Amino acid sequence: LDAGDKGRVYDLVEPLHPADVADLFELVDADDRPRLASAITDLLSGEVIAELNDFVRDGMIEALPPETVAGIAEQLETDDAVQLIEDLDAADQAAVLAEMEPADRAAIESALAYPEETAGRLMSRAFVAVPEHMTVGDLIDYLRDTDRGDLPTDFWEVFVVDPAHKPVGTCQLSWILRTPRHIALADVMKRDQTLIPVTADQEEVGNMFQKYALISAAVVDESGRLVGQMTADDVVHIISEEAGEDVLLLSGAGDGDINEPIRDAYTARVRWLVANLATASVASFVISRFESVIAQMVALAVLMPIVAGIGGNAGTQTLAVTVRALATNQLTASNVWRAVRRELSIALLNGATVALVIGLAVGLIFGHPMLGAVIGMAMLTNIVIAGIAGVLVPLTLERLGADPAISSSIFVTMTTDSMGFLVFLGLAVASGLVG
Amino acid sequence: LDAGDKGRVYDLVEPLHPADVADLFELVDADDRPRLASAITDLLSGEVIAELNDFVRDGMIEALPPETVAGIAEQLETDDAVQLIEDLDAADQAAVLAEMEPADRAAIESALAYPEETAGRLMSRAFVAVPEHMTVGDLIDYLRDTDRGDLPTDFWEVFVVDPAHKPVGTCQLSWILRTPRHIALADVMKRDQTLIPVTADQEEVGNMFQKYALISAAVVDESGRLVGQMTADDVVHIISEEAGEDVLLLSGAGDGDINEPIRDAYTARVRWLVANLATASVASFVISRFESVIAQMVALAVLMPIVAGIGGNAGTQTLAVTVRALATNQLTASNVWRAVRRELSIALLNGATVALVIGLAVGLIFGHPMLGAVIGMAMLTNIVIAGIAGVLVPLTLERLGADPAISSSIFVTMTTDSMGFLVFLGLAVASGLVG
Repeated sequence: LDAGDKGRVYDLVEPLHPADVADLFELVDADDRPRLASAITDLLSGEVIAELNDFVRDGMIEALPPETVAGIAEQLETDDAVQLIEDLDAADQAAVLAEMEPADRAAIESALAYPEETAGRLMSRAFVAVPEHMTVGDLIDYLRDTDRGDLPTDFWEVFVVDPAHKPVGTCQLSWILRTPRHIALADVMKRDQTLIPVTADQEEVGNMFQKYALISAAVVDESGRLVGQMTADDVVHIISEEAGEDVLLLSGAGDGDINEPIRDAYTARVRWLVANLATASVASFVISRFESVIAQMVALAVLMPIVAGIGGNAGTQTLAVTVRALATNQLTASNVWRAVRRELSIALLNGATVALVIGLAVGLIFGHPMLGAVIGMAMLTNIVIAGIAGVLVPLTLERLGADPAISSSIFVTMTTDSMGFLVFLGLAVASGLVG
Repeated sequence: LDAGDKGRVYDLVEPLHPADVADLFELVDADDRPRLASAITDLLSGEVIAELNDFVRDGMIEALPPETVAGIAEQLETDDAVQLIEDLDAADQAAVLAEMEPADRAAIESALAYPEETAGRLMSRAFVAVPEHMTVGDLIDYLRDTDRGDLPTDFWEVFVVDPAHKPVGTCQLSWILRTPRHIALADVMKRDQTLIPVTADQEEVGNMFQKYALISAAVVDESGRLVGQMTADDVVHIISEEAGEDVLLLSGAGDGDINEPIRDAYTARVRWLVANLATASVASFVISRFESVIAQMVALAVLMPIVAGIGGNAGTQTLAVTVRALATNQLTASNVWRAVRRELSIALLNGATVALVIGLAVGLIFGHPMLGAVIGMAMLTNIVIAGIAGVLVPLTLERLGADPAISSSIFVTMTTDSMGFLVFLGLAVASGLVG
C-alpha cells in the first residue's frame, strides 16, 4: 500500500472473508484507510461495512455522500442497515433515508422508532411465519416456491402463528426435515417457546438466549403479535459487549475501545479522573486531621498507603464478583443476605491472614510490636469494611436504578481509602502509640 | 419448603422450564438444597443439572452415588455429560464411567482426552455428515428414515464430506428446504466454511463464532477429518464467561462467582492480597526515603495519596481498554505502536487537565502556589507513566505467554503508586519547597 501498488493490494485482499477485510481495515492507521478503501472499492461490500468496529464505521460513513451510504444500506439486512445509520446526526440520517427505496426506508424508520439497544431496534424483520393447519409437505412446497422473493434465505426455525399473527409454536428446521410430509405442523412444533418483548433491553435478550440455549427466538409487540426475530449470531456480539463492558465501566474507561476517537476517550476518562479527585480529597481531608500525629511519627505516613491500598484491592475483588452476579441475574432480592454473609466471611478470613502477615512484618522490621499490632488491627478492620462496601454499594446503586458497574468503584475506593487512613491513624492515637 | 409441604413445592416447580428450576436451586440456601431436591426428585432431569452453575452442580454431584451420576450422565448429550464429571477427582470419575454403557463411556473418555476448555472437550459428537453426490431429495429421505436412531434431533446445518470424511462444504437447513428435490447438494452447499481445530482454545472458538457470525461449525482433527460440531447456544456461554472473567481476573477475584465455596474464594483472593502487600511495600519503601522531607512539611503526606491514587485510576482505565482489545483480537503486533501513541495522547490530555485542577485547588486551599505547581507537575507525570504502563504491561505479559488479565493490575498499580510518591516527594525536594 505504501508503494502505491493498488493492483497488488487488490489481489491480496480479494480472497479474504468480509470479516477479515473489516479486520484489515481496523488494523491499518486511520490515515491509510481512505487509500486502502480506494484500492479495493468494489470489495467493500455492505457485509464488510457491517463487520467494521462501530467507531471505524462511523468515521467512514460520515465521510461518504448520502447516496453512497443509502446504496450500501440497501445491500444490507434491516438490522445491519440500522446499525450503519443510527449514529449519524438527524440531518444526515434524513438525507440517507431520502435516497432509499420506500420499502427499505419504512423498515429502517420502524426500527429507529424503538430505543437503542432494545429488541425492536436490533431484531431482523425477515422471518418465516405460517398458519397452524399446514402439513410438513405444505410448508416445504411453500418454502420452495420461487415466486416468494420475500422469504429470507437464512433462517433457523419456522414460527407457527394464529390468524391474529400471534405465535402459537415453533418448529426447528431439523424437526421439519426429519418428519414425513403428511404430518401436521401442529404435531411437530413445540408450543412452549421463549418470546422476546419488542421493548426488551439487549442485556435481557442476551440473558434469555444464554439461559434457554436459544438459536433464534420470536420477537412480539405489546399486543403479542410476531414482529421479528433475533438470532444467536447477532446475540453473541451483544453478550460479548455486555459482559466485556463491565471491566471498562468499572475502571471508568467508558464504553470505548482502542478505535474510539481520542477526543471521545479523553472526555469519558477525564470526567472519571476528576470525580476521583473529589473522592481522593475526602481521604486527604481525613489525613489532614492527623497532621500532628504524623509529625510525631513519620513511619505512620510510610505505612498508611498500605492499609488504604490493600483495603481498596479487597473492595475491588468483592465489587467485581457482585457486579458480575448482578449482570448475570445470579444475585437477586432473594439471596442478597446470603451474598452479604458470604462476603463478610471471606473478608474476615482474608483480613485475619493479611493482618497477621503485615503485623508481624512491621513489628519485626520496625522493631516496634505495638506499631505491628496497630497496623494489623487497622488492616483487618479495613478489609471487612471493604467487603461490606464491595457488596452493598453496587446493590444499592442497582436498587436506585443506576448501572452498578458505572460508579460503584468510586464509592468503594473512597470508603476504603478514607476508612483505611482513619482507622490506622485513629488506632495509633487510641492505642497511645502517639498522642 | 420451610413448612415441609413437599406436595405443594412440587406443584409450584412442576410447570417451570429446566433452566428456571436450575435457577431456583441456585437461589435457595446451600443448606436447603438437599430438602428441595428430595421434594422434586423426578423433576431433577439431566437438563436441570446441566443448567446448574458449575459450583452448585459440583457440590451436588459429589454428594451422589456413582450409579446415580452415571444415570444422569446417560440422559445428557456427551458435551453436557463431560461437564458433569470433568471436575470430579480421578477415582470418582472412574467409578461413574464404570457404571455407564460402553458407547457413552467411550464418547466421554474421548472427550476427556482433550485438554479442558478446548474444542475437543466442548464439541458435540452428534452431527449430520453426508457424501457430496447426494441430492436434496436423497438427503431428506435419509433424514426421515426412522431407523436412523443415531441421527441427532437438533441440528442447524448438514456437513458435506469426502470419502476420507473431510469437510468439503456445508448446507444450512434453510437452503435445503428452499431447494427442489432433484438439485445436487454440491450445488446448494457453500464450499467456504469456518473449520474449528479440535485443539482450539474456547476463547478462540468464541472469537471465530463472533467474527464469522456462525450458528454452528464443524470441528476437525489434526488430519482434517470431521469429528464434531460446536453450536452457538454452547458458544454464548463461553463468550459470556471469557468476556466476563476479565473483570474478575483484573481485580484478583480469580474466576469465581457468588456460588464459589468460601474456602476456594478465600484461597484465590488472599493470594492476590498478599502479592499486593509485597508491591505496596515497594511504595512504602519509596516514602521511607523521604521521611525527613515529610517531617518538615506534613502537608506532603496529606496530598501524596492523591497523586498515587489518581495515577492508579488512569492506569486502570488504560489497562482495561488494552486487556479487552487483546482479548477480542483488536490489538495485534501490527498496531501496537498506534495503540501506545494513542494512549500517550490521551494521557497527556488527561494529565494536563487533572494537573490544572489539582494545582489550582492546592495552590488556593493551602495558599501555597509552589506546592500547587509541584503537585500539578507530579500529577501530569504520573498520569503519563500510568498510560504507558497500562498499555505496555499487558502487552509484555501477553508476549511472554501469560494471560494479561491475571497479573497486569498488580504491576501497573505498583508502578503508579511508587512513581506517584517518588515524583511528588522528589519534586518537592528538587523545587526547593523543602530540603
